[in-house]
Amino acid sequence: MTGKVWLVGAGPGDPELLTLRAVRVLAAADLILHDALVDRRVFELAPRAARFYVGKRAGRHSMSQETIERLLVRAARQGKRVVRLKCGDPFVLGRGGEEAIALRNAGIDVEIVPGITSAIAAPAAAGIPVTHRGVSAGFLVLSGSPDATWRRVLADLPPRSVTVVMLMALGCRREIAEHLLAHRWPGDTPAAIVRGAHTPAQHVTVTRLDELGGARSTSESEGAPGVLVIGDVVDVARHILPHTASAAPDAPLDEIVHEPSFA
Amino acid sequence: MTGKVWLVGAGPGDPELLTLRAVRVLAAADLILHDALVDRRVFELAPRAARFYVGKRAGRHSMSQETIERLLVRAARQGKRVVRLKCGDPFVLGRGGEEAIALRNAGIDVEIVPGITSAIAAPAAAGIPVTHRGVSAGFLVLSGSPDATWRRVLADLPPRSVTVVMLMALGCRREIAEHLLAHRWPGDTPAAIVRGAHTPAQHVTVTRLDELGGARSTSESEGAPGVLVIGDVVDVARHILPHTASAAPDAPLDEIVHEPSFA
Repeated sequence: MTGKVWLVGAGPGDPELLTLRAVRVLAAADLILHDALVDRRVFELAPRAARFYVGKRAGRHSMSQETIERLLVRAARQGKRVVRLKCGDPFVLGRGGEEAIALRNAGIDVEIVPGITSAIAAPAAAGIPVTHRGVSAGFLVLSGSPDATWRRVLADLPPRSVTVVMLMALGCRREIAEHLLAHRWPGDTPAAIVRGAHTPAQHVTVTRLDELGGARSTSESEGAPGVLVIGDVVDVARHILPHTASAAPDAPLDEIVHEPSFA
Repeated sequence: MTGKVWLVGAGPGDPELLTLRAVRVLAAADLILHDALVDRRVFELAPRAARFYVGKRAGRHSMSQETIERLLVRAARQGKRVVRLKCGDPFVLGRGGEEAIALRNAGIDVEIVPGITSAIAAPAAAGIPVTHRGVSAGFLVLSGSPDATWRRVLADLPPRSVTVVMLMALGCRREIAEHLLAHRWPGDTPAAIVRGAHTPAQHVTVTRLDELGGARSTSESEGAPGVLVIGDVVDVARHILPHTASAAPDAPLDEIVHEPSFA
């Protein structure tokens, strides 16, 4: 009797942002293979499940993708109900597609359970709508990984045409900012870094494109994953979260610590 | 005593894709103002709430944005706990930012509850990951609304560089395809239309860019909202959902009806 694998999006961090389907699937799980940064309360929803940490951190893979896929296949072949719990959404920059293909190729039944992506929910936690009428009619989500995609796409993107959201990009934010400035983006384009969105460590830095490279973080939020948002929608947040003030044009970089308003 | 408004994302259609937070907020609601296409089972989660339909359909506004905002403010001033239930995510092409600003300006407390956006979950329901290693390292979400944004952005986007996802764009899919073809996108770029994702009416059409304009739908799915996906990730679905076959290069347009695998 073969088991099954669910690729489940855990959302941006707060367990209350799990979907009902994720909760149902977790409750029946025999085994959970999870990324870093999953809240402990999520595991309480899966009382029957053994769990393995297979996560990755910036620049350091604790387990190869191949090993993860082999573990998934093996556990399913043992008849287990396996949850592969991924941060955000399984199909947004999370190699969920690769895992689904490996499972299908091994003849294992696989189901995708969408999750809330931090590409949208992290800006939202800072009061930033990725789209806003008259400001931005779309958004572009890119990874800051060292392949050439972001360089090529951002070089041709009409300046300030749509919101740019970048994941796994904090380490190269200086290069990204310089690249955009070199391609006619104005230096005063609003930008924000949202770290640890929807967690107690949430921290928002509001800045502008020509100051983004030097933008600091608080030490507490330094390890938290961050989302980079570039575009005029960052400025809309001032009207949505009254405690989000943009840095004044000549002022030194302003750092604003939010308590998530999602109590 | 002033009430409060929650802008809640209802997700793409299936009530099981609501978040736990959405469920908690609905349970305590006095009043729900909702869009079209909210599943009736969602209302069962809000037994205390009166509800008003304030939705919009393509080309027809049943209620002006101003009226919706006035209703929200008035109800909150009466001390009510108001849920503004929006399809997908409140900050993705849903005018949630405008509603949040109107409420803040009126001194009303407002909280954003993220939802699963169909920009990601509709492709996923068809087995299409919006990103996939070696295929697409990012995705662009645009509205097909008649402002100039999509024309300007798509004219400059390097062909096949990232996945293009378009909402509210089925009516202008021919113009979009012609525009991309005129800007060096190859005619055989895979494309898909996903209608009624995560609902019993789900219907997926897999085609290619030069046949997208003429792509038909089944009559049952004609009224359902649809998401347009353009890019090589559409082809990845063949390896993820075995029952999703791309149209062969010279074959007439292939139409594939999925039962959602999310039982």
